[in-house]
Amino acid sequence: MISKKMAAALESGICIRDIFEEGKKLAAVYGAENIFNFTIGNPSIEPPQVVTDALVKYAKTKPGLAVHGYPANVGFQDVRECIAAYLNKTYGTNYDYNGIIMTVGAANAMVCLCNVILDAGDEVVTFAPYFWEYRNYVENLYGKLVPALCNMQTLQPDPETFRAAISEKTKAVFINTPNNPTGAVYTEESIKNIAAILEEKQAEYGHPIYLISDEPYRLLSYDKPVPYLTNYYKNTIVVYSYSKTLSIPGERIGYISILPNVEGYKELLTGINAAIRYLGIVNAPSLQQKMLLDCYDACVDISIYKKTRDILYKGLTEIGYNVIHPDGAFYMFMQALEDDDVAFCERAKEERLLFAPGTAFYGPGWVRISYPVPAEVAERSLPAFKRLYDKYKG
Amino acid sequence: MISKKMAAALESGICIRDIFEEGKKLAAVYGAENIFNFTIGNPSIEPPQVVTDALVKYAKTKPGLAVHGYPANVGFQDVRECIAAYLNKTYGTNYDYNGIIMTVGAANAMVCLCNVILDAGDEVVTFAPYFWEYRNYVENLYGKLVPALCNMQTLQPDPETFRAAISEKTKAVFINTPNNPTGAVYTEESIKNIAAILEEKQAEYGHPIYLISDEPYRLLSYDKPVPYLTNYYKNTIVVYSYSKTLSIPGERIGYISILPNVEGYKELLTGINAAIRYLGIVNAPSLQQKMLLDCYDACVDISIYKKTRDILYKGLTEIGYNVIHPDGAFYMFMQALEDDDVAFCERAKEERLLFAPGTAFYGPGWVRISYPVPAEVAERSLPAFKRLYDKYKG
Repeated sequence: MISKKMAAALESGICIRDIFEEGKKLAAVYGAENIFNFTIGNPSIEPPQVVTDALVKYAKTKPGLAVHGYPANVGFQDVRECIAAYLNKTYGTNYDYNGIIMTVGAANAMVCLCNVILDAGDEVVTFAPYFWEYRNYVENLYGKLVPALCNMQTLQPDPETFRAAISEKTKAVFINTPNNPTGAVYTEESIKNIAAILEEKQAEYGHPIYLISDEPYRLLSYDKPVPYLTNYYKNTIVVYSYSKTLSIPGERIGYISILPNVEGYKELLTGINAAIRYLGIVNAPSLQQKMLLDCYDACVDISIYKKTRDILYKGLTEIGYNVIHPDGAFYMFMQALEDDDVAFCERAKEERLLFAPGTAFYGPGWVRISYPVPAEVAERSLPAFKRLYDKYKG
Repeated sequence: MISKKMAAALESGICIRDIFEEGKKLAAVYGAENIFNFTIGNPSIEPPQVVTDALVKYAKTKPGLAVHGYPANVGFQDVRECIAAYLNKTYGTNYDYNGIIMTVGAANAMVCLCNVILDAGDEVVTFAPYFWEYRNYVENLYGKLVPALCNMQTLQPDPETFRAAISEKTKAVFINTPNNPTGAVYTEESIKNIAAILEEKQAEYGHPIYLISDEPYRLLSYDKPVPYLTNYYKNTIVVYSYSKTLSIPGERIGYISILPNVEGYKELLTGINAAIRYLGIVNAPSLQQKMLLDCYDACVDISIYKKTRDILYKGLTEIGYNVIHPDGAFYMFMQALEDDDVAFCERAKEERLLFAPGTAFYGPGWVRISYPVPAEVAERSLPAFKRLYDKYKG
């Protein structure tokens, strides 16, 4: 009934959403306050008032078709101009509005790019641990996702592993910093190493290798700045989502940004325009596009996430867990207390702690703790983490 | 730089959007009132007030995350329940909310289904002339779209041509009534013939052949009711969009609906849930989903489109053009005055008439006139159509 390809993909995947939904069911049984659901990256801070105000304003705009009618496939020109100007001011870049394409969030932006760049059999390299859907984006198009495991002491990219992962078939590299699932912010040194290896490999193979930077967490960095990658490697394409910055993940709005000096600029733009139609998107939702005119530079108060991070990091390390200090996003990567991280997650459920096994992210032996939860929930979860620890080490 | 597949697709396509954009440029030069742009299906009637009211209400809802946070990949349960109840009441069906999946419009719903059903090399049959993007939806996944040409005197499906188009590789049939590009509403007799042939072929090949009914124009039928296809063929999957009914094509909201008795119901639902993630959609925009709670049964005043249709159909046939009477949607199919419909469209531009060549829809020798324009524009366009006619026949 369903395709062989889909059936095989379903068989191999661990669905974190399922664990999340299970958490909601447990909450109904035991009371929400007794379940510690650290499974998915669901923002918990209310959207800023400017978001509500903008949605109301543009929903009421007359004539309505100016907002609700078809924009160009790539988006409204005024919105794209506004984003280009913001990026240029913030990062010293020279984006033209033609290089800004509005998308249904960052995930769909990645898929659009895969549709433009990949033929069957082509490869995409990514730094592991990685957001599990990356594999689906690539393999759904009969491509191959090649993971390059980070140094698991630092969670930074390992240059030699990365170099070895690239082949003549590599058309793109996915990079995500601040990182899901680890919370790592890749250092300037890491970025420079990656850029040098990519330049070397482009020269060796004679075709561009695009560095596709997935940046929904760019503004969620608590301890250090996040290098802007176009400043290090010419063939960088940045994709962005407002889901986390504005706490509107359901609204599906983001963009692809390409600087005019990127190799194949015009072909890429033509291809993206087509991919948006081939995927049946037609355009990113138009009200959410217009909304950005009034809140393109807004951001939730990230000190709230930082507070939760600090409580959890301090509490977990004091208990005895091995957690690599997470500098950004709202994830931390913690070593499981047994080799089988899936079994460890199951055992944690006995303490009503829900988190995702690292195996789902190509990081076996570890778990991802997704912490966009109120600080008091983090505080209250620590005794449960302690009981879990004692089961193994007590 | 871009994939071979994408490059080949771009080479072969006629982009109607390009003609539309050209029309906007001409309007800037000659004045909008002097350009008759019949190229794309862009609704011209303002959205009903209930749409504005609903968007404002849900944009303001507190807590904001209840609206703007992540719904399930398949959508908010309350919205899906509401749509299931509406369909059951209207068409005497027995949808369960689990069988309603919210999508980024109908186009994306079609693509989701292709991702669930098709392996490389699989075939989809559709009745031609057809909406040109169908080919991209299928071929982007390395499938093959097989057109079954309608009877060009009636624009109704031709049973024998349809039967001959089906093979063992056929996994689905796309049907679109009221039809884009022709405006035809397929008769109950046509539907019964199609259903009988599909039953015969399912039995012959031993696997389901899904009839995927693309229904954005369902409520835009001016002369006769549109048969509800699940009542004729069990393995029907209906996809719907609110773009035309509510005049909100930019907002990208629609759904897939599957009755519990469809073969492979559970596998299809699991597959669609995954496809929404694999395509990077994650979920249909959440504010537009909630909006439907208040306007799921609203509709623009279609008598406005009917009036334009009547003016154009009467005017064009009186001039001498061969137009097949269009019963629905906002398109009519008109025979070109020379064999080369692309050349005919070029010549029409001299009279500042813009419409799309039938070749783009697998209907060579004809053109599509997209008429969601005010009645007075239709009236004023007739002298230009007359001058064009006289160039050929005068």
